[in-house]
Amino acid sequence: MENIRTDLAIEAHEMCSKKKAEETEVGGVLVTEDKRDGVFVTVIDIKSIEGEKELGKPMGKYITIEAPDIKFSDDALENTAKIIAEQIREICHVTESTKTLVVGLGNDMITPDALGPKVVSQLMVTNHIKTYMSELLDESYSSVCAIVPGVLGTTGIETTDIIKGVADKIKPEIVICVDALATRSVNRISTTVQISDTGISPGSGVENKREEISEKSIGAKVISIGVPTVVDAATIASDSIDAVIESSEELKVLCKENERRNIIKKALLGSEKNMMVTPKDIDLVIRRAAKVVADGINLALHNSVSF
Amino acid sequence: MENIRTDLAIEAHEMCSKKKAEETEVGGVLVTEDKRDGVFVTVIDIKSIEGEKELGKPMGKYITIEAPDIKFSDDALENTAKIIAEQIREICHVTESTKTLVVGLGNDMITPDALGPKVVSQLMVTNHIKTYMSELLDESYSSVCAIVPGVLGTTGIETTDIIKGVADKIKPEIVICVDALATRSVNRISTTVQISDTGISPGSGVENKREEISEKSIGAKVISIGVPTVVDAATIASDSIDAVIESSEELKVLCKENERRNIIKKALLGSEKNMMVTPKDIDLVIRRAAKVVADGINLALHNSVSF
Amino acid sequence: MENIRTDLAIEAHEMCSKKKAEETEVGGVLVTEDKRDGVFVTVIDIKSIEGEKELGKPMGKYITIEAPDIKFSDDALENTAKIIAEQIREICHVTESTKTLVVGLGNDMITPDALGPKVVSQLMVTNHIKTYMSELLDESYSSVCAIVPGVLGTTGIETTDIIKGVADKIKPEIVICVDALATRSVNRISTTVQISDTGISPGSGVENKREEISEKSIGAKVISIGVPTVVDAATIASDSIDAVIESSEELKVLCKENERRNIIKKALLGSEKNMMVTPKDIDLVIRRAAKVVADGINLALHNSVSF
Amino acid sequence: MENIRTDLAIEAHEMCSKKKAEETEVGGVLVTEDKRDGVFVTVIDIKSIEGEKELGKPMGKYITIEAPDIKFSDDALENTAKIIAEQIREICHVTESTKTLVVGLGNDMITPDALGPKVVSQLMVTNHIKTYMSELLDESYSSVCAIVPGVLGTTGIETTDIIKGVADKIKPEIVICVDALATRSVNRISTTVQISDTGISPGSGVENKREEISEKSIGAKVISIGVPTVVDAATIASDSIDAVIESSEELKVLCKENERRNIIKKALLGSEKNMMVTPKDIDLVIRRAAKVVADGINLALHNSVSF
Repeated sequence: MENIRTDLAIEAHEMCSKKKAEETEVGGVLVTEDKRDGVFVTVIDIKSIEGEKELGKPMGKYITIEAPDIKFSDDALENTAKIIAEQIREICHVTESTKTLVVGLGNDMITPDALGPKVVSQLMVTNHIKTYMSELLDESYSSVCAIVPGVLGTTGIETTDIIKGVADKIKPEIVICVDALATRSVNRISTTVQISDTGISPGSGVENKREEISEKSIGAKVISIGVPTVVDAATIASDSIDAVIESSEELKVLCKENERRNIIKKALLGSEKNMMVTPKDIDLVIRRAAKVVADGINLALHNSVSF
Repeated sequence: MENIRTDLAIEAHEMCSKKKAEETEVGGVLVTEDKRDGVFVTVIDIKSIEGEKELGKPMGKYITIEAPDIKFSDDALENTAKIIAEQIREICHVTESTKTLVVGLGNDMITPDALGPKVVSQLMVTNHIKTYMSELLDESYSSVCAIVPGVLGTTGIETTDIIKGVADKIKPEIVICVDALATRSVNRISTTVQISDTGISPGSGVENKREEISEKSIGAKVISIGVPTVVDAATIASDSIDAVIESSEELKVLCKENERRNIIKKALLGSEKNMMVTPKDIDLVIRRAAKVVADGINLALHNSVSF
Repeated sequence: MENIRTDLAIEAHEMCSKKKAEETEVGGVLVTEDKRDGVFVTVIDIKSIEGEKELGKPMGKYITIEAPDIKFSDDALENTAKIIAEQIREICHVTESTKTLVVGLGNDMITPDALGPKVVSQLMVTNHIKTYMSELLDESYSSVCAIVPGVLGTTGIETTDIIKGVADKIKPEIVICVDALATRSVNRISTTVQISDTGISPGSGVENKREEISEKSIGAKVISIGVPTVVDAATIASDSIDAVIESSEELKVLCKENERRNIIKKALLGSEKNMMVTPKDIDLVIRRAAKVVADGINLALHNSVSF
Repeated sequence: MENIRTDLAIEAHEMCSKKKAEETEVGGVLVTEDKRDGVFVTVIDIKSIEGEKELGKPMGKYITIEAPDIKFSDDALENTAKIIAEQIREICHVTESTKTLVVGLGNDMITPDALGPKVVSQLMVTNHIKTYMSELLDESYSSVCAIVPGVLGTTGIETTDIIKGVADKIKPEIVICVDALATRSVNRISTTVQISDTGISPGSGVENKREEISEKSIGAKVISIGVPTVVDAATIASDSIDAVIESSEELKVLCKENERRNIIKKALLGSEKNMMVTPKDIDLVIRRAAKVVADGINLALHNSVSF
């Protein structure tokens, strides 16, 4: 599973399950599934260190919302936004006096990495109005702030430091981090939303210096919302090879698992490094993905009564 | 002078001087002028509370660099960048170990307000390289970080709080704030650069809550760099009226100063409120203005030996 | 009236009417007014050479739709789009087999001039689908093409030549030209839509070489749709001066009409040349204006049955 | 070779040559190579119908300029622009009175497809100046026009019809079409420029209706300039599989050529359809590629004396 990058718990779980086909369950991981109005909701609850190690993701709840129709249908988009709002509210309690900081992670100069900044630009930000002109908003609005911290390569600052610095000043009860993710499957691009209650380690800095954004480190409930927008080119390469090998019994015998990885490594020679795979209409689909997440957050944090 | 908005000390000084034509000097204000290669450098040093009150600007040094040719000439642009670098270095001492935080103020969604963000996007940001891969940069590079904090209306957070929060974490010795300014004169748009060593109060929040970014409040040397990109529509209106009145002796007698303001106020009825005047090619000229400031900052903070 | 630029027939008419306050009607010009759901619709029908000379606009129908609420209200926007669609359909008959070429005039690199290109980007373009995959669209869709021809300064080609060249190839029955306009009044910016059945002379080329886009020159019905997005700075200056003069009987006596223009000319000295006045939030309001026009055109040209 | 998309003649030639390793030359195709200052120039001259069929490209000259350093080095960029200019001038004779129409093909809303529009935005367009204010330009400038015709999906019009319509009106002697290309190799993205004197069939319309832009159809010399900006995801998949198979003698025996294609087809199942592979920093590298092409065209068409 090393070499293959996915940010989605549901895919990490699928890969694990496949490897141990005989078992129905990965140890310490609880999975529940639901389907409503064409939208699949899968909750993966990693409950133990064992599960953490198996899936390569920190303990916690990962809610995957799969809504292929949001690409085309405005009704599906609205419907999915409502489900996102419900799931956020299951993780944290929002009242009129709650203060939330939404963080739009990613580089807004790179189209498939700009999901976070695009979501932030569509939020109903209310903190300054509630502070200075509170008479303009009734009790159905909570207090929302939002920042776009940029990325290490353009700020020179660990993104975690920026978020913590701002959180220290404004003391939010909830921090929602929105980010673009990598997936194994082109079909998930801009149609799947992952919500989790675990912390997040933004960006690609030097690992041992990296500090997490988490309830422990920041003193606020942390929710991560991500949408896959790219597939690593290496994933496409690896999947293609697997598909070929699987298609022939002879090849399957010839290429045993371990060996297979070696062959692939040699074959790829790193030439796909730093390459990403996106749909040709990524500029369009990312706009719809940003809208569904922004609408979901707006619904979760405001209009408490009507929802 | 109330009613007429200018962010430039040089214009505030001109207006004062005009009012008291008989005197050659406004009290407590020292002015020196210089011209090199077609670039005018005027230093206005406000040295007393009296001067502060007269000009309506906090005590400190205001360096105005007027370079009309940067609109068209690449040589003038390069030359002006060098003068900006020199002036920054006169205000603060930069060595290899200096850490600077550059702050791009303004709203990057509004063309004439996007100067700060545009400057930041062209900076040589080095802090992360000096921290994690110091072998890549020799001693001619100092440590540079940069953020684009956004504006109150889209973040819900006082910009000052964001800057302070980040500065608390990364402890810079110098903070350089870059912002778009308002001028009284259309000819200054994108051709004048003001550098000052006073603090800055970003944005348009509720005044009495407003905290300044200053050496005192932030524990770092603070430099403000601004370029005029708009004229308030009210300024155009007021200037036109003054020009008409000045053009006729009879009108001059008829409209005494105090009265004049009343007439103007009544006449304008606030309809020009929130209107700005910009050149038709603002999208182009602001790009060149951002380049000259970014080049100036890059030169001031890096290449210490060769400069 | 020379010196004061307006592209709106309704403003040209107001200025004329004001000059001859005693008369209730400008010769050869028929005006009808209507109000529905907070939207004013004024039709100015210039029916004679006399009216043409008085208003400085070619003969024809000018429909002005004033909808101040579209800035804020989505309902007002939808409602206004329907009125635009109705008015387009009054000017020309659209059936399933009608082919329309929509032309987005203006420079998409200059925010307030980008209305035309922005409208085009939101159109339901169907000509290629009706040609190659006609089974995908039912009879409620007519055939729509769209181009963004650019401006003389960046193409080196008279915009009229580009439009004619394309029209010669594709033979549309209707040509709809969408353009940003200049207004005398800041309140009209992005809240007024002018639809006319007269030709249009795009851009700012050398006058005597300029050829018009008109039914005669192009062999298709030509509809012009414009939204004011700027006020000339000279207009603000001139209006301010008028307001001051009007505010005092003595000044009124002193400044006779002819003289007044001379004073203004001398006073302005051309310094406001090439300056435009826009709202500070022009990037936002122009987006809504483009949406209402695009929705109006889409409704007019498609869904013939349901409308 | 079917299934694998490349727009580069040099790659089509490589694939052919590989298939017939024993031969040193593909019939009817003349290849010359040159290297100067780190830049490789390969000229592939397809001289017969036989060569046309072998390479799947129309007869004519294809000049491939490979300049990996333009990604980083400004000197390499300038140097490469000069080579592009020379090659354009070898294909066509430019004098003061030559009129050229440059066409920026592609969709400017999709980053890797926006090369053509980006190049056009950096051209020195002179036709209108030479027509109306000829005294401003000396004889070293030829007459340059430029258009960005858009793509079938957003205009509803065959791009060929737009180009022909405009060319009919302005009668250019030379038409230069600039477009983004697909390559087989990620290393070529934004570092290779292909110049050819054959016609071009822009876009993706229905094939049998498609008319070419060529000297014959348009009555002007036609030059195509392209830069690879994407790799089809299917290419990555196919290459990976080939690499794996090539890496083992046993697999090579097992997977004969024909069979191999079938396996791949089954394995891919079209899931990579409409997926593209680009570098993560495509927004940046495409800017440099656009600059080198624009500089090359500007040099070729202007400053005839000094070059």
